[in-house]
Amino acid sequence: MRRNLIDILDLSVEEIDELCAKAEDIYHNPEKYTDVCHGKIMGALFFEPSTRTRLSFTSAMMSLGGNVLGFSSAASSSVSKGETVSDTVRMVSAYSDIIVMRHPKEGAPIVAKMSSRVPIINAGDGGHYHPTQTLTDLMTIRRRHGRFDGLTIGVLGDLKYGRTVHSLVGAMSRYKNIKFVFISPDELKVPQHILNLYKEKISYIETENLEDVIGDLDILYMTRIQKERFSDLLQYERLKDSYELTREKLKNAKADMSVMHPLPRVTEINTDVDDDPRAAYFEEAECGRYIRMALILKLLADKTSDMPLEGETVTGKICGNPRCITSCERGIKHLIHNGRCIYCDRKID
Amino acid sequence: MRRNLIDILDLSVEEIDELCAKAEDIYHNPEKYTDVCHGKIMGALFFEPSTRTRLSFTSAMMSLGGNVLGFSSAASSSVSKGETVSDTVRMVSAYSDIIVMRHPKEGAPIVAKMSSRVPIINAGDGGHYHPTQTLTDLMTIRRRHGRFDGLTIGVLGDLKYGRTVHSLVGAMSRYKNIKFVFISPDELKVPQHILNLYKEKISYIETENLEDVIGDLDILYMTRIQKERFSDLLQYERLKDSYELTREKLKNAKADMSVMHPLPRVTEINTDVDDDPRAAYFEEAECGRYIRMALILKLLADKTSDMPLEGETVTGKICGNPRCITSCERGIKHLIHNGRCIYCDRKID
Amino acid sequence: MRRNLIDILDLSVEEIDELCAKAEDIYHNPEKYTDVCHGKIMGALFFEPSTRTRLSFTSAMMSLGGNVLGFSSAASSSVSKGETVSDTVRMVSAYSDIIVMRHPKEGAPIVAKMSSRVPIINAGDGGHYHPTQTLTDLMTIRRRHGRFDGLTIGVLGDLKYGRTVHSLVGAMSRYKNIKFVFISPDELKVPQHILNLYKEKISYIETENLEDVIGDLDILYMTRIQKERFSDLLQYERLKDSYELTREKLKNAKADMSVMHPLPRVTEINTDVDDDPRAAYFEEAECGRYIRMALILKLLADKTSDMPLEGETVTGKICGNPRCITSCERGIKHLIHNGRCIYCDRKID
Repeated sequence: MRRNLIDILDLSVEEIDELCAKAEDIYHNPEKYTDVCHGKIMGALFFEPSTRTRLSFTSAMMSLGGNVLGFSSAASSSVSKGETVSDTVRMVSAYSDIIVMRHPKEGAPIVAKMSSRVPIINAGDGGHYHPTQTLTDLMTIRRRHGRFDGLTIGVLGDLKYGRTVHSLVGAMSRYKNIKFVFISPDELKVPQHILNLYKEKISYIETENLEDVIGDLDILYMTRIQKERFSDLLQYERLKDSYELTREKLKNAKADMSVMHPLPRVTEINTDVDDDPRAAYFEEAECGRYIRMALILKLLADKTSDMPLEGETVTGKICGNPRCITSCERGIKHLIHNGRCIYCDRKID
Repeated sequence: MRRNLIDILDLSVEEIDELCAKAEDIYHNPEKYTDVCHGKIMGALFFEPSTRTRLSFTSAMMSLGGNVLGFSSAASSSVSKGETVSDTVRMVSAYSDIIVMRHPKEGAPIVAKMSSRVPIINAGDGGHYHPTQTLTDLMTIRRRHGRFDGLTIGVLGDLKYGRTVHSLVGAMSRYKNIKFVFISPDELKVPQHILNLYKEKISYIETENLEDVIGDLDILYMTRIQKERFSDLLQYERLKDSYELTREKLKNAKADMSVMHPLPRVTEINTDVDDDPRAAYFEEAECGRYIRMALILKLLADKTSDMPLEGETVTGKICGNPRCITSCERGIKHLIHNGRCIYCDRKID
Repeated sequence: MRRNLIDILDLSVEEIDELCAKAEDIYHNPEKYTDVCHGKIMGALFFEPSTRTRLSFTSAMMSLGGNVLGFSSAASSSVSKGETVSDTVRMVSAYSDIIVMRHPKEGAPIVAKMSSRVPIINAGDGGHYHPTQTLTDLMTIRRRHGRFDGLTIGVLGDLKYGRTVHSLVGAMSRYKNIKFVFISPDELKVPQHILNLYKEKISYIETENLEDVIGDLDILYMTRIQKERFSDLLQYERLKDSYELTREKLKNAKADMSVMHPLPRVTEINTDVDDDPRAAYFEEAECGRYIRMALILKLLADKTSDMPLEGETVTGKICGNPRCITSCERGIKHLIHNGRCIYCDRKID
C-alpha cells in the first residue's frame, strides 16, 4: 500500500490544503523537522538534467535529515547500457525509501510505479506532467493571496507545449470563480483538447497582447517562449517585445499582483522587475523546497494506496506517440482506458 | 595495517561466511546499524560509469549512517588533467575513511592500494575482477540454497570476457562437489588459462545449448552476450534465440533452480520470467546493498593487514598488455611474480 | 550581515592566524567537530570541473556533520538553459546555508555575492583568484616552518597565468622580510602589474634556472608549466628538464626546505621525490580539508559584513575583458573603481 504522485490531480483539494499548511509550518519551524527522515534515503533519478528541480528535492530531503543518491543525467546511468526504466526503478527501489524521477518520455513514471516498491514522485515526464512545480505554484499563490477562489490568472508564453501551464490550469479548475487570461501568439495557444477538459469549470479569454489585459490580473504567470517555436519569424519580431515583462509595463498592473515564473528565465522578465514587490518568482523557488519537504513526509507516511490503474489491453492497438514511454520501453503493456493511452493520454483510434 | 578487497580470493571461505551472516543480520535488523558509520566518509571513485554498483555502495554507506563523496565518470575527475591513479587516490584517502573504485584498466586498484592510507574496495577493474558482484552472488546462493557445496551451476553467455563469470568460478572452486555447465558459442568459451587454474577443483562440461542442460541445474547464471562479439553473424542468428531465457524454457528446469544475472539485462531474459519464483536477479540486486554494508563494516574494523605484494622488478621486462594499468600510469613499477604481471596477471615472456 | 571570501586579501592577517589555529585544532581533535554543522547544507556550484577542490570542500562539510548538494560541471546545470549566475545563485541560496562556487569567468563570485542570501566562497574564478588554495598553502607553511616571516620562497613554472602564484605573493606580502625567487622562462614571468602591487612589500629576484637558486630556498612552490604556453618550442626543449624537480636536484636544497604544489601534477615533480621528507604536497592536500572546515565554521558564524563594494557606474565605459563575467552575464552593472573593473580588476581606459 503506497501513494505516488504522477499528476497534480492525484491529490485532492483537501490534500493540497494540508500540504500547503504543512509546508508553512516547516517554513516557520524548520528545527522541528531536522531529523524526521533520519536514516531514510531518496533516490533521485534524473534521466534528463534539471538543476532546479533536482536541487530543491535534494535540499528538501537533506533538510528533513535524510540522504540522497542517484544520477543527474542518463549518460551517467545504466540506461546507456540499454536497461529499461522498469528495471532501473526496481533496482533503485531496493536501495531507497522514496524515488523522485524526471524522464524525457511521457508516462515513464507510470511504468516506474508499476515496478517500484517505494513511492514514486514525478519530477517531470517530457511535456506531460510536472506536479511538484504546480504544488510550488499553489503554495506561492496561497501565501501571497490567501485564497485560491476568485482569482484572475494571466498566463503568458508558450501555452501549446508548456506543461507547467496545463498542470496549473487543471489544478486551478477545481476552485471557484477562476478566470484565466491566456496570452500568446496564435501559433502557441492552449491546445483545444486541454481547453475541452476544463472549459466548464473555468472561464477564460485568449489574447495576443499583455498590455491590454495586465490591469485585470491577480497573477501573471510567465513562461519562456522560444524563438524556434515560431514558424513565422516576422511574427516573432513583432511580438517579442510584447512578451518581455519590464518595470515599465508593470505600471498598469494591480499593486498586489504576483509575477510568477517556474524559472529559469532567460529574457522574458527584465532584471529591472526583480526588486518590485510584485516579483514572486524567487519566493516561488524558495517555496519549492518547503512544499517538497511536506510532500516527502506525506508519501513516506501515507498507508493508503493509489487507485489501481484502470486500463485494458486492446489487441492490435498501440499508442504510436513518439514522445510516449511506450515508444522505447521493452516489455511494456499497451494499456488503453476510455480510448486513450494510459501512459501519455493520447487518443488511440 | 589495513585490509583491501581487490580479488574475491583475498577473502577466506570463513570470511565469506561471516560476511553473508552479517549481511543477513543487517537485512533483518537494519535499525541496529543505522548510525554505526556516523561521521565516516566513503570515497566513490568511478573512473568509468556504473549506476548499479555505485548506487548500491552509496545506499550501503548511507544505510550505515555514513557519507559518500566522489565522482561518477572520469570526465568529471582530475584524470582529465593528466593526474595518475596513484596521486588521485592518495589525495582522496586524505578526504575519506574508505575508498571504492571502478577503473577501466586491469590492476588499477592494486596501484591504488599502494598509495592509499585507507582500505580500497575494487568495484571492477576492466575485464579483470569484480569481487563485490561475486559476494552478492554468493549471498544470493546461500539464502536460496542454504549451502555452497554440491551445486550444479550453469553459466550462460559471454564466458570469454565476462569477469563476473571468472570470479564466480574462482569463488565456487573452493567448495566441495561443484559442477559447472558452461553454455556459450564456441568463440566465447571460458579461456583455457582460467580453466587451468581451477580444473582440479571443479568438474565442468561445455555446451552450446541451454535447453539440453537446463534440467540439471541448481543455478542458471545468465550474462549479457553482445552481438559484436561474434565474428560470424550467421552463428549469432543461429544461437541468439537459444540464449534468450523465456518462461517457456523454464518448464524443464528444477522447481528450485535460481535464475541469476548481475544486471543490467537487455534481452537475454524475457520479462515474462520476472514473476517466476525462480527469478532471483532482483533479489540479487537487493542482496548487493546488504553484503556491501557488511563488507564496509569489516574493512573499517579490520586491523590485520593484506599480505605484502610479492613481486620483483625484472629489468627490461614490461607487461605490454594494453588493458593493464601499466600501459598508462606514469611512475609505475613493473612488478613480476611467478612470471606474471602482478597488476593484470598476464604471463610475461 | 554576512561575510564572503572572494580574494585572500578579504581576510586580515589575524583572521588567517585564527583559521590556521582552528584548522590545527580540528586536525588534532576531529571528534569535537563531528556534528557542529548538523542540519546545515553547503551548495557546491562547480560551473567548471575541479575534483580536488570539490572533494576537499565536500569532505570538509561532511566532516562537520553537514550535507552537500550541487553540480560538478556546467553541462549538468541550468546554465545550459541560459540562466545567469545571479539567478542560479539566488535560487541555490534558498536551498543551502553556504555556497562554494567555481566559475570560468573572472569576477563571477562577486556577481554571486550580490544576489546570494548566504555566504559565498570563491573556489576559483578563471585565472583570477583561488583564496582557499592560498589558505591551504599558508597552513602548510605554518605547520612546517612555524612562521610566515623571514622566508625565502621560490616559485617555479607559469608565473604569468598562475592564479595560485599571484594569490600567494599577495598573501605573503603582508608578512615581514619575505623574499621571492621567481623561476620561469622569460615569456612566463610574473606580470609587471602584479609586481607593481607588491614590490614595496617584498624583495624578489627573477631567474630562468632552478639549480642556481635551489640552495637558498625555504620553500619551493612548483606549478605546472604547459608546453602550449611557449611560442618558441626550442626554448621549451632547452628549459623543460630544468623545470622537472627530481631527487637528484634536491641534493643541493636545504634539509628543511618544503616542496609545495597545488596539484594535480603531471611531470613537473618526478615521483622519486615523493618519499623525500621535503615533499610537502600531499600534506598540503590534506591541510586543504582542515582549513576549509575552519573557514566554513567561520563564515557560518560571522555576523559582521563585507565592506560594501566601492564602485560607480561610468556611463559608456565597459570592461571589455573577454575573460570577465561582464562579457556574458545579462543584466550586469559595469562598475568601475579607481579606474578598474570591480569584477576582474582590469584597467579601463
